[in-house]
Amino acid sequence: MRSIQKFAGTLVLIMGASLSVNAQQFNKPEDAIKYRKSAFVVMNAQFDQLASMVKGNVPYDAKIASEGAAAVEELSKLPWAGFAEGTDKGETKARPEIWTETAKFKDAQAKLMMESGKLATAAKTGKLEDLKVAVSATGGACKNCHENFKSK
Amino acid sequence: MRSIQKFAGTLVLIMGASLSVNAQQFNKPEDAIKYRKSAFVVMNAQFDQLASMVKGNVPYDAKIASEGAAAVEELSKLPWAGFAEGTDKGETKARPEIWTETAKFKDAQAKLMMESGKLATAAKTGKLEDLKVAVSATGGACKNCHENFKSK
Repeated sequence: MRSIQKFAGTLVLIMGASLSVNAQQFNKPEDAIKYRKSAFVVMNAQFDQLASMVKGNVPYDAKIASEGAAAVEELSKLPWAGFAEGTDKGETKARPEIWTETAKFKDAQAKLMMESGKLATAAKTGKLEDLKVAVSATGGACKNCHENFKSK
Repeated sequence: MRSIQKFAGTLVLIMGASLSVNAQQFNKPEDAIKYRKSAFVVMNAQFDQLASMVKGNVPYDAKIASEGAAAVEELSKLPWAGFAEGTDKGETKARPEIWTETAKFKDAQAKLMMESGKLATAAKTGKLEDLKVAVSATGGACKNCHENFKSK
């Protein structure tokens, strides 16, 4: 069982790596930083809306949840191209570990993309309970990456 | 022929309206402005990459083009929720017409979403010629909205 999980994890890592080669061409490091921060802003707003539904702070709406989760799934693939070499300085909370522990960082990206994919699937079921589980797992993937790679 | 076009236009408008009710909950007007600007930053970066391929400034890569166009398609749905009432002031180039000519603004949104959808389809064919046509049409939809609703 553990070896299956390990294999699945490796597979996700490979898939994640292949998904994240959306190699943006940035003229300046600031542009790359602005790009990745923007992707996180939009992803965060979309995810917050889902989290608010799960918490009961906004009414659950299956259609909006499904659209929001699809947005999160797509956005989860996008920021990574902005973490190019030479973009570790400037207006950023990115920690140096991003560029020194690249395998671990790629693993954290892959985890977010995987959980966001599950989130999109869960939102389509139209069951709040499914959404709840997936929001929690996706939030965990956000947190995992922030704890390791984002400054306070 | 004109009446068919008019009907199609109306249909797109209705679809657009239904797609853009991804009603974000923003605590402050600044949050809504930051959200919509971020969505445009990411969409623009992804679209620029496709435009660069079409112009021959970066090598054509069917897979990257397909991923980029899928991102543009998703992102084309997202900024609109950020144009809530009361978000016309502050750090924004949004023109007042957004809130006074709402039907025209919704039409411009619908046009971008429609062309972005076609862009995603075109990118999947793997033919640079198809991408070229769709990039041009999508760029036209960007320009149309900027000319009418964005300050210089």
